[in-house]
Amino acid sequence: MSKEARYDQTFLAGNSKATLLVRNIGQLCTLDTGESMGPRRKEEMTQLGIFTEAAMVVSGDEIAATGPESELMARLFPDGLPEDLPVVDAAGRSVIPGFVDPHTHTVFGKTRQDEYERRIKGETYLEIAAAGGGIHSSVRDLRGRSEEELVELATVRLREMLAQGTTTVEIKSGYGLTLADELKMLRAARTAAESVGVRSVRTCLAAHEIPHEYKDKRRDYVNLVTDEILVQVKAEGLAQRCDVFCEPTVFDLEETLIILTRARDLGLSLTVHADELASFGGAMLAARLGANSADHLIKIDEQGRQALAASNTVAVMLPGTVFSLGLKNYAPGRGMIDQGCALALASDFNPGSCPINSMPLVMAIACTQMRLLPSESLVASTLNAAWALGLNDEVGSLATGKKADFLILDGDDYRLIPYRAGHNPVESVFLGGCKVC
Amino acid sequence: MSKEARYDQTFLAGNSKATLLVRNIGQLCTLDTGESMGPRRKEEMTQLGIFTEAAMVVSGDEIAATGPESELMARLFPDGLPEDLPVVDAAGRSVIPGFVDPHTHTVFGKTRQDEYERRIKGETYLEIAAAGGGIHSSVRDLRGRSEEELVELATVRLREMLAQGTTTVEIKSGYGLTLADELKMLRAARTAAESVGVRSVRTCLAAHEIPHEYKDKRRDYVNLVTDEILVQVKAEGLAQRCDVFCEPTVFDLEETLIILTRARDLGLSLTVHADELASFGGAMLAARLGANSADHLIKIDEQGRQALAASNTVAVMLPGTVFSLGLKNYAPGRGMIDQGCALALASDFNPGSCPINSMPLVMAIACTQMRLLPSESLVASTLNAAWALGLNDEVGSLATGKKADFLILDGDDYRLIPYRAGHNPVESVFLGGCKVC
Repeated sequence: MSKEARYDQTFLAGNSKATLLVRNIGQLCTLDTGESMGPRRKEEMTQLGIFTEAAMVVSGDEIAATGPESELMARLFPDGLPEDLPVVDAAGRSVIPGFVDPHTHTVFGKTRQDEYERRIKGETYLEIAAAGGGIHSSVRDLRGRSEEELVELATVRLREMLAQGTTTVEIKSGYGLTLADELKMLRAARTAAESVGVRSVRTCLAAHEIPHEYKDKRRDYVNLVTDEILVQVKAEGLAQRCDVFCEPTVFDLEETLIILTRARDLGLSLTVHADELASFGGAMLAARLGANSADHLIKIDEQGRQALAASNTVAVMLPGTVFSLGLKNYAPGRGMIDQGCALALASDFNPGSCPINSMPLVMAIACTQMRLLPSESLVASTLNAAWALGLNDEVGSLATGKKADFLILDGDDYRLIPYRAGHNPVESVFLGGCKVC
Repeated sequence: MSKEARYDQTFLAGNSKATLLVRNIGQLCTLDTGESMGPRRKEEMTQLGIFTEAAMVVSGDEIAATGPESELMARLFPDGLPEDLPVVDAAGRSVIPGFVDPHTHTVFGKTRQDEYERRIKGETYLEIAAAGGGIHSSVRDLRGRSEEELVELATVRLREMLAQGTTTVEIKSGYGLTLADELKMLRAARTAAESVGVRSVRTCLAAHEIPHEYKDKRRDYVNLVTDEILVQVKAEGLAQRCDVFCEPTVFDLEETLIILTRARDLGLSLTVHADELASFGGAMLAARLGANSADHLIKIDEQGRQALAASNTVAVMLPGTVFSLGLKNYAPGRGMIDQGCALALASDFNPGSCPINSMPLVMAIACTQMRLLPSESLVASTLNAAWALGLNDEVGSLATGKKADFLILDGDDYRLIPYRAGHNPVESVFLGGCKVC
């Protein structure tokens, strides 16, 4: 029996209760384009499952039905609407799934606008690091803060992100680099996300950098990550994923393999910071290990591209970072879509290389600078991003049975999201069928 | 007598009444760095006249005094605050002048996201025009709309701009291209600005394009502009400025000279769309005619740069347009500041080439892509932009005697404005001393 028929039957039998009706939707982008064995690729990335003059029924925290309003009304409510059914009038506007941001470093202490200014003045990464900047500066800062302070800071940021439509967010550790500080970060991420109500996936990125105190004993730090940090993170259920910053200057391929293999054995899913600064084989490794995603990919080579195209490892691109750093070369998003890679977008929100946490702006940068179509940028920010997090059964589209996380926009065309860069296109946000802003 | 001493005397004598006190300002960027014979240049563009732990006194709709809070209190209110004086607590945040956006096409009908998508697909400007797109598409659309419709659309947009800190906005005509439609646009601009309360400067850009019906009689259209449109616009007081789109494919140098000379004779001030598509001498002409500004300048050559550096004609750059079009080459802002040109930033908000109307995002693009320092981007978006509009005596800084148009930011450092691209940094907006959002 099709999902649709199952829901109809349930409704008509009175066994399932509609708890919310959204009607008068000018353009409903369900992204529900049928079963798929994997993330969307090629022309699938332009298919948005659009209904016009549409409606959507929510039951509990799930999508119960979507379709043209008149058909939906006749099918599900042949005797008229139940009197107690809450109804939201979308006033002809667009409704889309909530954004899924699959790569952020939302838990941090101080902002680093001083480095932003230094970079503009022409200082190099090494000069900035020598002056106390870079990741180590956030590590020093974070280690000195309490968990409560981190929760407070992250809560404000998650509220901002929610107001711009991010309903599911990945949050990494990686500014702690000790067992206690990594656990502190992940607990802060969990608490902040729960307090805001946004769905979160947490990733242990203890392998973000070699901490200064291990500079001359790298292998000891790798052991700390594999034998203590990951074990404890898993034991406490603080993260679902493990990430490694795999670059020539950070963790090499062998170290990356050791850490990710251990994480996989512990039952964590995998992702890799890959091929950002150099073509280094990170994407290939990610594909080989069956990682959910390989992220950054600015310098990915042809072999890496082919490996991703042949796998279900999602290519997560972070164009906000390239923009914020004032670089000229973006990851080859257009070419990789054409080649069959499944692409997702993420903000990479962090205090150093990308202070942007707005998915609408990330979509705009992807469209204008990487030549993604607006439709592709939407699939990349919702359904494929959900695949990148392994949450594709729960969120990322408005398919029947998924969580009712959706946005009512302030316009009647999803293309206005990237077109109107710098404007918050979100009129209201629903999480699990409840209006949260 | 200095302005400061004059105000002190007036206050102490009880002849001038403080009507608002803003206190507990963490960082007050007055941009009041002393008398200047012209717009800010070179290192002057980094000087923000900053006070910390500061306060600001407003009298009527004007700035009465700014300075360190303790000094200001002791000097102006030695006997304590008047009981009836409204006080705003800035809670340690930054206060800056309201943004001045000196180049917009805010009055238009439909948005053109279809062209945005076509461009991403690789269609050329000519192909898009052949398919009914481009400026002519907005002309057709605008001619079919009533003044009331245009007012309604522009009002929504001006409210959005105000909420992101734009307190003074230039608005051009140029989608009418008939006497009646140009007047309709300018009236709509005036009415919308008045209804929102934002300060506006209106510019007649009847010379935006040769309308289709004059395709084979260009000179007749130039005559229509000089002999009818500009005359009537001036007679009705609908615009203060005249602009010409001076490019090889639009109005040539001779036509531009004819139109601008006529406008100057009528008492309008001048600006030029110059050197955007080709190095064409537009900037040099603007400098020679004593225009307030030359705008775009992506292709400006060395002669043009020198001409601007040697004049008080402000170089208005529109990096949002380059970003929105997905182009790689920005106007040479960094080099032109170093060369001594007075630089301003504007949104170029229009439905075709730049749907961005957020000055904070424009500043971010200028910083990351043109390598302006955050301080330079702020001067370029306030004081120098006011010079570009000839409003430097009224707005653009928080100097004593200027209009009390200011923003309380949501952070404590003005550099967070460009750093946090995609985030609206404006906590509240004051126009003439009144909180408007």
